[in-house]
Amino acid sequence: MSEISFVTPKCRYPGGDDKIFGANARANQKSGEIGFENVINATVGALLNDDGSLSVMKSAMNHFRSLPDAEISAYAPIAGLPEFRDAAIKACFGDYRPDAHIEAVATPGGSGAIRNTIWNYSDPGDAILTSDWYWGPYDTQSTVNGRRLETYKLFNDSDEFNIDAFREKSAELVETQDRLVILLNSPAHNPTGYSLTDKEWESVMGTINKLAENPDKRIVLFADIAYIDFAGDGSSRGFMKLFGSLPENVLVIVAYSMSKAFTLYGLRSGAMICVSSNKYATEEFFNSCQVANRGTWSNGTRGAQKLLADVYADENLKAEIEWERAYYKTLLEERATSFQKASKEAGLETCPYRHGFFVAIPCDKPNEVAEELENRNIYAVALQKGLRFAVCSVSKDKCAKAPKIIKDAIITVESRKWKVESGKWKEKD
Amino acid sequence: MSEISFVTPKCRYPGGDDKIFGANARANQKSGEIGFENVINATVGALLNDDGSLSVMKSAMNHFRSLPDAEISAYAPIAGLPEFRDAAIKACFGDYRPDAHIEAVATPGGSGAIRNTIWNYSDPGDAILTSDWYWGPYDTQSTVNGRRLETYKLFNDSDEFNIDAFREKSAELVETQDRLVILLNSPAHNPTGYSLTDKEWESVMGTINKLAENPDKRIVLFADIAYIDFAGDGSSRGFMKLFGSLPENVLVIVAYSMSKAFTLYGLRSGAMICVSSNKYATEEFFNSCQVANRGTWSNGTRGAQKLLADVYADENLKAEIEWERAYYKTLLEERATSFQKASKEAGLETCPYRHGFFVAIPCDKPNEVAEELENRNIYAVALQKGLRFAVCSVSKDKCAKAPKIIKDAIITVESRKWKVESGKWKEKD
Repeated sequence: MSEISFVTPKCRYPGGDDKIFGANARANQKSGEIGFENVINATVGALLNDDGSLSVMKSAMNHFRSLPDAEISAYAPIAGLPEFRDAAIKACFGDYRPDAHIEAVATPGGSGAIRNTIWNYSDPGDAILTSDWYWGPYDTQSTVNGRRLETYKLFNDSDEFNIDAFREKSAELVETQDRLVILLNSPAHNPTGYSLTDKEWESVMGTINKLAENPDKRIVLFADIAYIDFAGDGSSRGFMKLFGSLPENVLVIVAYSMSKAFTLYGLRSGAMICVSSNKYATEEFFNSCQVANRGTWSNGTRGAQKLLADVYADENLKAEIEWERAYYKTLLEERATSFQKASKEAGLETCPYRHGFFVAIPCDKPNEVAEELENRNIYAVALQKGLRFAVCSVSKDKCAKAPKIIKDAIITVESRKWKVESGKWKEKD
Repeated sequence: MSEISFVTPKCRYPGGDDKIFGANARANQKSGEIGFENVINATVGALLNDDGSLSVMKSAMNHFRSLPDAEISAYAPIAGLPEFRDAAIKACFGDYRPDAHIEAVATPGGSGAIRNTIWNYSDPGDAILTSDWYWGPYDTQSTVNGRRLETYKLFNDSDEFNIDAFREKSAELVETQDRLVILLNSPAHNPTGYSLTDKEWESVMGTINKLAENPDKRIVLFADIAYIDFAGDGSSRGFMKLFGSLPENVLVIVAYSMSKAFTLYGLRSGAMICVSSNKYATEEFFNSCQVANRGTWSNGTRGAQKLLADVYADENLKAEIEWERAYYKTLLEERATSFQKASKEAGLETCPYRHGFFVAIPCDKPNEVAEELENRNIYAVALQKGLRFAVCSVSKDKCAKAPKIIKDAIITVESRKWKVESGKWKEKD
């Protein structure tokens, strides 16, 4: 029987298991064979306990379970419960609410916010800008929605945010596009764990101000803060103050997600929050994103929305959740510190890590290195420019062991590039 | 300050409250003023108890609440839990699984299934086909995604499915398009409550076979069965057998939703289920819809998926849920019967109702009639071609009262069209 294709050409995609899902499955199988204690599974992008079970914040989960039936069962409004939208704005900005007009619309996690931003705020065919280390779905989202992802080098030679590369690339794109959407994931960048300093944020906003000098251009900064509640203290939100008093042709959309902050990944709840000096722009945002919701997934998970609303209506609940989150934040920091220390000892180069769920290890031939690591019972995710090691899902002890083994695997793969010819080392063709 | 627009032109939409949400809010306000017993709120598209509270199936909700933390907290796979996909296929087809290749992908309710179908299976600018009585978001989904909705007359003069109109319109569109997506909502059509008979389904599939005679065309039938579990008995799925052994250039996508079947609207869980004689077509479906998921909302609500999987792994749980659902089905049928009987007595014309949450009342100037009804403390939704009365949300007693009042309101509005001039009735200009 011949192959009959139905899908419109631009929407056809090859099959194949998700890379992360596949590596995770192999890790679990290996655990079953040789014991969990002998396998290091650093593939999962969620906080896990030392025994490999999912970390669930009891305070959040118990409150969710205590909601009245109807608060879980009923439809939420298309744009989200009004009290959720208010709470999301509070949760997003904390003590650093920018001086600007602000509107929020509920979305299924941060992913929905990315989709609506790309869809509403760029033109078909446009380039969407992010850094060369990036979360894979940024590319999927751009491509699937008929745009393309372009990148600038994230780090300069001093392992700082590469403001020159950002300036150059964004200026180049603004030359040829009416609109520019910039996806910037900080703090606790996935996959590197980098967090821009306040000074670096100032440079970014300065660059964006410059891009906006031509009043016909529209610059949209999409600030992905998915991991912010696991990054430093409350003052890690300081940069958000910079989103106030921007030129009128600059729009900031902050992606707020409950997935990590409440360990409620599977409930699919987040919000896109718009910040602008122009009131009309925020109204247009609300109206257009509400219709975009209706035209794709309709509405969000009501119970999760109600939970966030309740947190901001109940000081005790809020305190309880923050207390429990602090415990997990410490757990995460201990693991990351353990990994960093061991990396130094093993001479393993990593991207500059500040906060968050992941550490990235630059290397050549990441797929080969990942395969070599699997032979040594370590499972990490191969990216274009290196490996992603999820410190969020690996115990402190294992984090201390992994770097030496990773370094060895990199050397093994590296050594395959060389051969001895006439008594001399030569690079293979 | 001037108005600065950021949104790309095709994605700009005016504001304004959702029509249904607005009418519902006014009804609730009126209830507060004059008492719930004196107001008939027929706006809400969900099963409500006689006292206006949401009907929640305890059997489903209690099992959801009993799930382990991680089954609610963790991410589901992008395409959905494998055991959910299997269960959705079983729940969808019951004893009438078609003889064909079948694949399922999880989506946020039926809405997500509509979106992925329009997006993947029609070309930009294409017409999407449905009947002239239709659920509003069919239009939103088509428009927002760069397509347009076209319609055929749903009923013929005998109040049956208008197969001639369907044949004519679909043939016309296939002349000019390579692909045709047909949205067909049956049984228990929203907003009319119509259900195609098995004979009518045969005519529909016969027409589709005819459309497919040109092997270069791709015909995609999107069968929206959102309300099927409240429509007749198990044999109401008999038509699904017709989805087997179709020509290879016909694809059927069935939209299965947990929203109504488990009264879990707010958990946003459903599946799109592909049926084809061509194995490649179902594989392409799975791969492309999985990527479409990743490029929009990422993944679905895991807890709801796990619930459905459990239902199909536990006979007792399944029986308990079916028993409770039968209670609500009877409640709904009693209300609908009460409304139909009173309509006959009052001489109120309705669309031919068979099953489901809504009755539709054809009338001129639906907005004016709805307004007139609100003066008489009845709240219904004005559509293009008449009113939608949600029998699902109104007690049997109120359903018996409403038709006379609706008839009066229609007459009142109708009478405004006439004037007496020189002693004779004349239609106003």
